[in-house]
Amino acid sequence: MVRIALAQVNPTVGDIDGNTAKIIEYIKEARDKSVDLVVFPELVITGYPPKDLLLKPSFIDANRRALARIISETADIAVIIGFVDHSNAPFVSNAYDLSALPKKTLYNSAALLHDGRLIGIQHKMHLPNYDVFDEKRYFKPGTENRVFNLGNLKLGINICEDLWVDGSTEKQVELGAELIVNISASPFYAGKSRLRRELIAMRAQANKVPIAYVNLVGGQDELVFDGRSCVFDARGALIAEGEQFEECLVISTIDSAPIAPPDEADRAEMREKEEIEEIFNALLLGIRDYVRKNGFTKVVIGLSGGIDSALTAALATEALGAHNVVGVAMPSAITSSSSIEDAKRLAENLGIEFKVIPIVDAVNAYTRMLSEEFKDTAPDVTEENIQARIRGNVLMALSNKFGYLVLSTGNKSELAVGYCTLYGDMSGGLAAISDVPKTMVYKLAAYYNKLKGAEVIPHSIITKAPSAELRAGQKDTDSLPPYEVLDPILHAYIEENRSKEEIIAMGFDAEVVSEVIWKVDHNEYKRQQAPIGIKITPKAFGTGRRMPITNRYNG
Amino acid sequence: MVRIALAQVNPTVGDIDGNTAKIIEYIKEARDKSVDLVVFPELVITGYPPKDLLLKPSFIDANRRALARIISETADIAVIIGFVDHSNAPFVSNAYDLSALPKKTLYNSAALLHDGRLIGIQHKMHLPNYDVFDEKRYFKPGTENRVFNLGNLKLGINICEDLWVDGSTEKQVELGAELIVNISASPFYAGKSRLRRELIAMRAQANKVPIAYVNLVGGQDELVFDGRSCVFDARGALIAEGEQFEECLVISTIDSAPIAPPDEADRAEMREKEEIEEIFNALLLGIRDYVRKNGFTKVVIGLSGGIDSALTAALATEALGAHNVVGVAMPSAITSSSSIEDAKRLAENLGIEFKVIPIVDAVNAYTRMLSEEFKDTAPDVTEENIQARIRGNVLMALSNKFGYLVLSTGNKSELAVGYCTLYGDMSGGLAAISDVPKTMVYKLAAYYNKLKGAEVIPHSIITKAPSAELRAGQKDTDSLPPYEVLDPILHAYIEENRSKEEIIAMGFDAEVVSEVIWKVDHNEYKRQQAPIGIKITPKAFGTGRRMPITNRYNG
Repeated sequence: MVRIALAQVNPTVGDIDGNTAKIIEYIKEARDKSVDLVVFPELVITGYPPKDLLLKPSFIDANRRALARIISETADIAVIIGFVDHSNAPFVSNAYDLSALPKKTLYNSAALLHDGRLIGIQHKMHLPNYDVFDEKRYFKPGTENRVFNLGNLKLGINICEDLWVDGSTEKQVELGAELIVNISASPFYAGKSRLRRELIAMRAQANKVPIAYVNLVGGQDELVFDGRSCVFDARGALIAEGEQFEECLVISTIDSAPIAPPDEADRAEMREKEEIEEIFNALLLGIRDYVRKNGFTKVVIGLSGGIDSALTAALATEALGAHNVVGVAMPSAITSSSSIEDAKRLAENLGIEFKVIPIVDAVNAYTRMLSEEFKDTAPDVTEENIQARIRGNVLMALSNKFGYLVLSTGNKSELAVGYCTLYGDMSGGLAAISDVPKTMVYKLAAYYNKLKGAEVIPHSIITKAPSAELRAGQKDTDSLPPYEVLDPILHAYIEENRSKEEIIAMGFDAEVVSEVIWKVDHNEYKRQQAPIGIKITPKAFGTGRRMPITNRYNG
Repeated sequence: MVRIALAQVNPTVGDIDGNTAKIIEYIKEARDKSVDLVVFPELVITGYPPKDLLLKPSFIDANRRALARIISETADIAVIIGFVDHSNAPFVSNAYDLSALPKKTLYNSAALLHDGRLIGIQHKMHLPNYDVFDEKRYFKPGTENRVFNLGNLKLGINICEDLWVDGSTEKQVELGAELIVNISASPFYAGKSRLRRELIAMRAQANKVPIAYVNLVGGQDELVFDGRSCVFDARGALIAEGEQFEECLVISTIDSAPIAPPDEADRAEMREKEEIEEIFNALLLGIRDYVRKNGFTKVVIGLSGGIDSALTAALATEALGAHNVVGVAMPSAITSSSSIEDAKRLAENLGIEFKVIPIVDAVNAYTRMLSEEFKDTAPDVTEENIQARIRGNVLMALSNKFGYLVLSTGNKSELAVGYCTLYGDMSGGLAAISDVPKTMVYKLAAYYNKLKGAEVIPHSIITKAPSAELRAGQKDTDSLPPYEVLDPILHAYIEENRSKEEIIAMGFDAEVVSEVIWKVDHNEYKRQQAPIGIKITPKAFGTGRRMPITNRYNG
């Protein structure tokens, strides 16, 4: 009936010219493949999320000019594309403080183009303004769910959130829509693609209408868009699906035979396998796109001989190639020889460049430099932090001198409780695994070794007791509960916003819970100076969790 | 007619018990002073902005319990107070992604209490969601502008933004309101208090109704609330006004004789004087409250002998007392003796503790440590950054060992173009002057010396050419245009969102403008790891300006 192509593309935020060129290329490819309608994701012209670039009038104008150029490339084909529409009305009628507001009223929009003409525009009706989303900062919601005629086909277009909230699809079907197209920029977290598929199947089935869903792909700062665009038929059966984490053009004919869904037993197993694999691939894309889109080629990673830096190095190697990863061991007087050996073996297994830069001399210089000030004091966390900061400085020096990006290696559990050194091991341009809880770090390491069919991450790294190795004989469990206890407490507190009392009632030791919560709250200042990290859970630190630093709430 | 008290108080975010105790104290004081109605600011029970604490159901419950306790303290007096109201309806009807949303529908609200009873609740109608504000992330807007009976008086209550946007006051007056009370948490920027007074005068005059306005006071992370609560009569004349930047109880009787406004010539002069004085006092409050509310006593500041660190030390001394400020000079081989002398003289003039910790030994240790890696390279910014990072580490070591808070000293112009070292001079818990453009740093230094009636900040510091002193003979103008040129370009680009073309059309050199804009855009990654800074302009870096790091827009 209609031959549709989902153009699951990877734009770059702000690169309006580059994105436009890519869009035009995909239109040509679709036309060459006899496609009737090619669909691009939400805000594909600007990239998503464009954030406060939307407050620049010149940016809005550039996006409009790009749309005009794209319209001229639509001979003999129909196109649906995300862009920023505007009206000249002021955003709000506030005469006193307009400087912080868009000058014009903006709409997050989809344009339907056909054969060199603009057929119509649908404004997004439901603007997400939670977690990482700030759409009400920029946009006004649309006021009308519309249906467009494309030849004989009645077409309803809606945008991302419009599909999640009850109403838009229902209204469009009521108006006669025979096909719903949803254009999205839906960021990844573990399990979300399954949720999305269930949602789309439910909407299609409930409304007896086929739904074509196109999602952005690519990494953008802390967000990863995972693609997996799809088409469901009017019975709610999946008839086409794009790759996850890869750019692609998914072509299907609406009305083709449905693919039978897997039965429940298979599906349950698939989910379990999917989660770790999904997270692994999301991290690869997040690393690769941050590095490449920001013009870097190589990354440098401090290798402590521990599991976090090992996993980070493995991910970077997969994402960028071994020749683009530099590992550096920076032993102090405290560092055990087995740590250096483990780091070396890891680097050899990965095939990456490996350097050893001892920091003993610098540690001694700091000791001398501060001896007068510290003369009547006992060693404490100060001396531990100095070592971590020297290592951070060494990595930054290599970054400055050779143009490498520093990947920091801290995990989510550490970052949550502040078990990390600001300006030390927290130094870097991107915190690759800072949304990965420690217990999941182990799962990812095991997955990676299994994927490679070898102990690329050495067994000794996986089995040793976690230690920051900043003090002789130090173990993480000197300061923290075991990660099997810590991680569920953190999950309840951070992801579920549960109170201290509720978490204790779940069966955890009251003192442990109190101490963990105290640490989470009192380390907000560190997290606000942390490099961005790749979001893989529903609630990551960063723009999705906005906490005051000055905060006396203790609940 | 009605004796009203504006309780311009300084709560702490999250300190529901402490805030409640303070509120009850002020109610008692007002009662003792025969007040009929005492008015507290917006969200005074929780502190403002509570941010994602609002997503914790236990926090909302604690705020409701506090309100109940306050109600029981209102014998023989009426109280208007800001709190979080809720209904049990879900925030949005989205079945799939509720984890990031409040569990219940929340309203930013004012309660009218009288003689032990809750008389009524007004929900905020207009929710700001621009600049630093995220109220649509948490709250639903009210649906009705109400009028309450308090004895014989018909009273309209509205909340902050409701006064700025046309509609609420007008509707309440239409419903018979004889007095409008606005409760606010309106953050400071230079000139805003004047804007606020003009607004309130205009609304009072246009609606022929007296307006009592109470604003929060205090510092909260990057925000300063400046108080200056006031009452305007129905002719738009000011009849009472509270202090700026200080907690106070402002009592007045509505219907008392209006204070004659100053004539235009006086007013213009007043404004000019006010701006620098206002900014100076805002910075003092911002520093004092950040330090005290976070449990610190002393601060430590690196003194380079330059104007930025001199101003920061002067502000800290005024805010905290000389005995709570430690200045540290950290000379390298490049540091001139005049820099150390200037730092020493400044410290003497301020009466603060002064330390000299030479970093030469540590610099040499880094040189040796990196000699193998850097053997075929020429010195560049890497070696400059190493010095800055050693200094940052020394300050952090003093912080770790002695519990001092590090104040970083960078100004807004530097931070804008990235003329600062991440993990070096950017290290600290609070960036005291990071929203102060360099040209204004000089004005503040001059204001301070005039205020003290002495050259506390030595003349030589004020007149020397700005230099980072990280390379022999280095001057800021080697890398940057003069600040008299740079600052207006930055203002146009950052605060006014003007395009490159527009700024060039203002008469600036095209190459200079292009380079400045390039630097601003490419240093976003540094700013996102900067300590919070005190907002004194309409557009500060931080939560009020949300830019992607990965960003290829060049306009």
